[in-house]
Amino acid sequence: MRPMSSAPFDSTSGSAGQVRFFNPGPVWVRPQVLQALGGPMMSHRSQAFSDLYGRILEKLPKLFRTKGQAHTLATSATGVWEAALVSCVEGPVLCCCNGAFSDKWGEMSQRLGLDTTILKAEWGKPILAEEVRKKLAEKKFQAVTVVHNETSTGTISDLPAIAKVVHEGSDALLFADVVTSLAGTRVEADEWGLDVAVCGSQKALALPPGIAVFSISEKALAAARQKKHRGLYLDLIDVEAFGKKKQNPTTPSLPLLYALDVQLDHILAEGLENRWARHHSMLKAVEEWAPKAGFRFLPEDPATHSPTVSSLYPPEGVNAEELNKAMKKEGFTPGSGYGKFKPLNIRIGHMGDVDLESVKALLAAYDKVAQGMLAASAVGAGTKS
Amino acid sequence: MRPMSSAPFDSTSGSAGQVRFFNPGPVWVRPQVLQALGGPMMSHRSQAFSDLYGRILEKLPKLFRTKGQAHTLATSATGVWEAALVSCVEGPVLCCCNGAFSDKWGEMSQRLGLDTTILKAEWGKPILAEEVRKKLAEKKFQAVTVVHNETSTGTISDLPAIAKVVHEGSDALLFADVVTSLAGTRVEADEWGLDVAVCGSQKALALPPGIAVFSISEKALAAARQKKHRGLYLDLIDVEAFGKKKQNPTTPSLPLLYALDVQLDHILAEGLENRWARHHSMLKAVEEWAPKAGFRFLPEDPATHSPTVSSLYPPEGVNAEELNKAMKKEGFTPGSGYGKFKPLNIRIGHMGDVDLESVKALLAAYDKVAQGMLAASAVGAGTKS
Repeated sequence: MRPMSSAPFDSTSGSAGQVRFFNPGPVWVRPQVLQALGGPMMSHRSQAFSDLYGRILEKLPKLFRTKGQAHTLATSATGVWEAALVSCVEGPVLCCCNGAFSDKWGEMSQRLGLDTTILKAEWGKPILAEEVRKKLAEKKFQAVTVVHNETSTGTISDLPAIAKVVHEGSDALLFADVVTSLAGTRVEADEWGLDVAVCGSQKALALPPGIAVFSISEKALAAARQKKHRGLYLDLIDVEAFGKKKQNPTTPSLPLLYALDVQLDHILAEGLENRWARHHSMLKAVEEWAPKAGFRFLPEDPATHSPTVSSLYPPEGVNAEELNKAMKKEGFTPGSGYGKFKPLNIRIGHMGDVDLESVKALLAAYDKVAQGMLAASAVGAGTKS
Repeated sequence: MRPMSSAPFDSTSGSAGQVRFFNPGPVWVRPQVLQALGGPMMSHRSQAFSDLYGRILEKLPKLFRTKGQAHTLATSATGVWEAALVSCVEGPVLCCCNGAFSDKWGEMSQRLGLDTTILKAEWGKPILAEEVRKKLAEKKFQAVTVVHNETSTGTISDLPAIAKVVHEGSDALLFADVVTSLAGTRVEADEWGLDVAVCGSQKALALPPGIAVFSISEKALAAARQKKHRGLYLDLIDVEAFGKKKQNPTTPSLPLLYALDVQLDHILAEGLENRWARHHSMLKAVEEWAPKAGFRFLPEDPATHSPTVSSLYPPEGVNAEELNKAMKKEGFTPGSGYGKFKPLNIRIGHMGDVDLESVKALLAAYDKVAQGMLAASAVGAGTKS
């Protein structure tokens, strides 16, 4: 797909350096993708639909690096969290919780009435494989849930190490939320042994929200076949069965499928490893800039800095919420801190099709605005003294 | 909203008489609505989002004719069928089944492990209030499911009569699928006492698929509050709580919400009762045409003919599937029969923003094509004899 050229791939398709929207999801979406949403209506039982969906089902597993299956569901990623639990699990679940989203998955497991053990880490800390190993030694779990990259705190855990511990120390299913890691950094469903890997559309895939994508292993499907009451809408066995016909069991979100088809071509044209490298280069730019600008990463260990979203404390004396308000006036939309960190942090979503030059423009604006606020407060303090 | 004019409201917004897509859902969508899908990305926790969603939550109850609440969920309508059962019901359910969709709701209830009684009517027959009354006398049910208008067979049941029986004869919750009745014919959530009324977007609302809308009564919410394990994604209590903040609990389908906002204005500008009347005039055109053209309605009783989708046997000697193939060559896309009726019937979706003149053009084309096929087979028969 990619033309022979010495110029670097323009992830923005013509808006290089001009992106000003850095929300950590929904992220900036290329106009070409927004246009694709408006494709013509058709029956989801027609050949034309199966042609479209067949293309998607062929490309999607490449994102997850699986030779097995990947599917879509007309829910947010949260819907597939629930589908994995509802379809495959009856026994005890170990939920690894280190931020708003992983906490929520644990809460969901409890609210479904499943026997749930919470492995808790502080927000901003990763889930450690060693801690998972200890929990697995204490009890036999049917499934383990873990969030690869906690969007709420910009903290990435060592998922391959966790996966290794889970598969060596138990025969539990491993459910991984790869919502802000897939297509932004390495995710290897087969190599690591992710039984269900769940992703939303509005993050590093750079689509609008409204659909979830996921890979599912034979082991997870076998577990689902053993479970009696899986309901219907969230039944992954149904999704698999209709997938064979290049259909969805229920009415799919046609606009999002049109957009997904177009965007998968774009992602594969960039090349998955190139895309990961681009995300890491954006993180590197933030890491090089932050100490000079007086910003500090929420996750202390640099090995846990997320390649897709940076959660940062502003310089002392600068209020995070005021800072982002001032950034808005400069034409930039960064993200605010999440949940309890809302008044304390800012978050920069450097993911999807956002490019490095745009990130640099954002960082320069942060410099200018934060320095202005510090200068103003120094003058204010001077006046008072 | 509607300008002062003596000209009738153009439901197609400029394509009057030109619609050629008559699938009974997804239906034809105005280009203005397709364009609205491509609105800008924003955080679903931002004020801008709450402004959008607040407009929707204000307009939506008018469609359902409720002074209470109506909400959206990022699923198909099937997802809200499941949400109603998962959120509100623990005890026995009476599922009224008279077609592919109502059968599926019954199957869902069984697959959720609920104690389910099926009241079965033949495909093409309505659910009779009297039969519901008998079932309610036999057992105490916590909920009754009924599909107002069976899209699979083009058969409408007397929902107000059924609702009366349910509320007089029991204190069961009444869950109604109004997928192909809402905004196409009278639906009165408050007056009839619909505890959950569920609708998809891709039918008489004339939006693309990808979101569900529903009304919910205080009685249904009270039942949900009593139920311990409601999960999270399908928990209608969460949806209600976040609705108060003009938000969704999980990531909403932003493109569909943009489109819904625009389309609710369009529907309310036409006027709900005018919209119902327009749908009934399209049915009337089919009813007047059918006997002359040798087509026969699947539902025998004219009182049960659906105002939104007509399911018809073609003239004797004309194969339904061949007929629709020939219609495709004429530039028309009608619907095929559903499920077991696929080889036997055609279905005409006369709903959403399709206009009467376009329906008349379709019927004229059916005349021409069916007559041509009959003439060809008569010649063929003549040659053979």
